[in-house]
Amino acid sequence: MNDRASAPIDPGPPRRVASVRDVSVNLAHGSGGRAMRDLIEDVFVSTFDNPTLSALEDQAVFALAGLATHGDRLAFTTDSYVVDPLFFPGGDIGTLAVSGTVNDLAVCGATPLYLSCAVVIEEGLAVDILRRVAASMQRVALEAGVAIVTGDTKVVERGCADKLFINTAGIGVVRGDVSISARNARPGDVVIVNGYLGDHGAAILVARQQLALEADVQSDCCPLNGLIAVMLDICPQIHCLRDATRGGAATVLNEFAQSSNVTIRIRETDVPVREPVQGACEILGLDPLYLANEGKLVAVVPADAAERVLAAMRAHPAGREAAAIGEVEAGEGGLVVMQTTFGGQRIVDMLVGEQLPRIC
Amino acid sequence: MNDRASAPIDPGPPRRVASVRDVSVNLAHGSGGRAMRDLIEDVFVSTFDNPTLSALEDQAVFALAGLATHGDRLAFTTDSYVVDPLFFPGGDIGTLAVSGTVNDLAVCGATPLYLSCAVVIEEGLAVDILRRVAASMQRVALEAGVAIVTGDTKVVERGCADKLFINTAGIGVVRGDVSISARNARPGDVVIVNGYLGDHGAAILVARQQLALEADVQSDCCPLNGLIAVMLDICPQIHCLRDATRGGAATVLNEFAQSSNVTIRIRETDVPVREPVQGACEILGLDPLYLANEGKLVAVVPADAAERVLAAMRAHPAGREAAAIGEVEAGEGGLVVMQTTFGGQRIVDMLVGEQLPRIC
Repeated sequence: MNDRASAPIDPGPPRRVASVRDVSVNLAHGSGGRAMRDLIEDVFVSTFDNPTLSALEDQAVFALAGLATHGDRLAFTTDSYVVDPLFFPGGDIGTLAVSGTVNDLAVCGATPLYLSCAVVIEEGLAVDILRRVAASMQRVALEAGVAIVTGDTKVVERGCADKLFINTAGIGVVRGDVSISARNARPGDVVIVNGYLGDHGAAILVARQQLALEADVQSDCCPLNGLIAVMLDICPQIHCLRDATRGGAATVLNEFAQSSNVTIRIRETDVPVREPVQGACEILGLDPLYLANEGKLVAVVPADAAERVLAAMRAHPAGREAAAIGEVEAGEGGLVVMQTTFGGQRIVDMLVGEQLPRIC
Repeated sequence: MNDRASAPIDPGPPRRVASVRDVSVNLAHGSGGRAMRDLIEDVFVSTFDNPTLSALEDQAVFALAGLATHGDRLAFTTDSYVVDPLFFPGGDIGTLAVSGTVNDLAVCGATPLYLSCAVVIEEGLAVDILRRVAASMQRVALEAGVAIVTGDTKVVERGCADKLFINTAGIGVVRGDVSISARNARPGDVVIVNGYLGDHGAAILVARQQLALEADVQSDCCPLNGLIAVMLDICPQIHCLRDATRGGAATVLNEFAQSSNVTIRIRETDVPVREPVQGACEILGLDPLYLANEGKLVAVVPADAAERVLAAMRAHPAGREAAAIGEVEAGEGGLVVMQTTFGGQRIVDMLVGEQLPRIC
C-alpha cells in the first residue's frame, strides 16, 4: 500500500498517507490488518521519515560501511510478543519470540545471527514460568543457530501488564546476490506456501477454550531460516517472501499484490488447511486465510523455478506440505482474487478490524 | 538507606552465580540493583549461555565477518521503557526510549546508527499521545544522529498494560581502537561524572506528585553520544564508561569495582547534586547516588588524561558540570567506599530492593 507511490504504471496519488480517524487506539490497530497499517503510517512512518522504515517491510536492510565486501547488507528487525495465554499447544511465548524474529530476518534472505531479549514482567509472575520460557527461547535459538546476546528486564506493578511481554530484536546478514521485496512480484510468477494455514490461530483459540476441536491442533510455531536457506540455494531469485503471522496469508498476499501493482489469483482448492481447522472456522465464521501462522511463509517465485523450489521445500521438515496455491497476473490496483471451491470467485481483501487479539 | 543494611564488611568471593530464592517476581527484580542481577543471571544468562551475554554489559559487542576492516565491531542493545507517568518535567517516554538506547550504545564507544521501535499499547490510549511520543522520539533521534528504521505495533486489551510501553533496540559500530569494559578499572584511575546526579529520579517523583520541590527540577534525559565522542577523541583509552540509569551512580560504581576487582573511593563533597534534589532526598530517606539518571555517565579514566578529559567535557553542553568524584585503589572484593561530608566513611553497596519502580 505505502509503496505504490513508486510503481511506474500509476503516476497518480496512490500513496495514501493514511490518517487515523480514531481518537483512541483499539484492538484493530494491533491486528496486522488495514487499521494497523494506517496507524503505523500516520504516527510512526510519517514522523520517523526515512526510506528504510517507509518501505514497511518487516525488517530494515541497509548497507554498513566495511561490510560491503560482496555487497552484503545488514538486516535488523524487532517484534514484541503479547500472546495470551503464555503456553499453548505446540509452543509458548518463548518459542514464539525467537521463531518470529528469526523468521522476520530469514524472509528477507538474511542469515539470522544475533537476538536480543527484553522482558516486561507483571509483579507476581512465578519465576518458574520465566525459567520455562527462557528454556524455550534457548531451544529454538539453538535450532535456528542464533545467539541471544543482550537483554533487558523491567517489572511493573500488578495489574499494569498481563503476566509477561517479550521483545526480541534481531540482526542478520543478507547475501549480496539476494534481493527479496514485496515489490518484486511479476506476472507469471507462482505463489507458494509451505504447508497448512491457520494452525497457530486455531491452537490459540483452543488454549483460550474458545474452541473445542475433535482433532489435536498444535501451533506451527517454528524457525523457518533452514527452509528458506534451502529455497534460496535452489532459487536465489525468489521475488517475494514473507511469513504469514498476524493478518494471515491474506494480508501477505495483499501486501505483495499492492506493492507490486499486480493481481494475485489463488485457488481455494489448493490452499492447504487442516480439516479440523477448516471445520472450526466455518462454525466460528473465521477465514483460515486470515488466521495467524507462526511457521508459514508465502513465496512468489519465477514460474520456471517453481517446481524445483517446491520439491526442495517438500524435502525439508518445515515444508513437507508445501503447495503452489496460485499465480501472479498483470492487473492494476493490487487485487487478490480467489477462485472458490464452488467455481465462483471472490476478492480476498486485507483484514479489516481485528480477527483475534493477542495472537502473538 | 536500603543499601547499608547488607554492606559486606568482610568481602567474600566477588563473582556469585546468583540463584533467585523468590518464588515470584517482585518490583525489586526490576530495580537495576542486586535482585535484578540475580534474576537475570539465574533465568537468562545461565539459559542463553554465551560469553557475549554473560559479560553483562548493557550491550553486546561482537565481530561481524566482513566488518573487520580496521577491527571494527558491531554493538547491539535493547531496552524496554515502562516509565510512569508517560510525560514528566524534561521529557517523556519517547525522549527516554531514544536517549536510553543511544546511550547504551555510546558508552561502549559505539557510534549509534540505527534504532528499532516496538510499542505495546493499551486499548483506549489517545492516538494524539502516540503522536506526541513519536515526535519526541524523532527529535532526539535527529539530535543523536540515528535513524529509526524498523518497528512493531501491538495492542492489548484495556487493563492488560498501563497505557504504553516502548522497546528500542539499537545498532552501532565500535572503532577498532576503543576497548571499554567494566573490567578495565586500574588503581590510580580517576572517576568522573558529567554533572548533577539524581535529576531524572527527582523529576519523576515530582510528576507523580510524590514530591513537591521548591525549585524546578527537570529530567536530565538526553543522548550522550556527542559528549562521549569528544571524550574518546581526547582519550581513546577510557577504561570504563556506563550511563547511570536504574540503580543510579552507586550501582555503576559497584559494577566497575566488582568487575575490575578493585576498590573505588569517592568523596561525597565532590559528588554534584542539586540543592533541591539533595534536600528532597533527605526528607524522603532516598540517596541521590541511587536515584536514576537518563543523561549521566560514570567514567573511569587514566589519571594522566583526567584533567584533559574533564576540560573537554565541560566545554560540551552535556558535560558542563562534569566533576572528578574519586579514585580507583587496589583492593580485593570490589568495594565502593565514600568519604562522607562529615569526615567518616561508609560502604556504598549495590541497590538492594527497589528504590522507585517504573523510573524508566
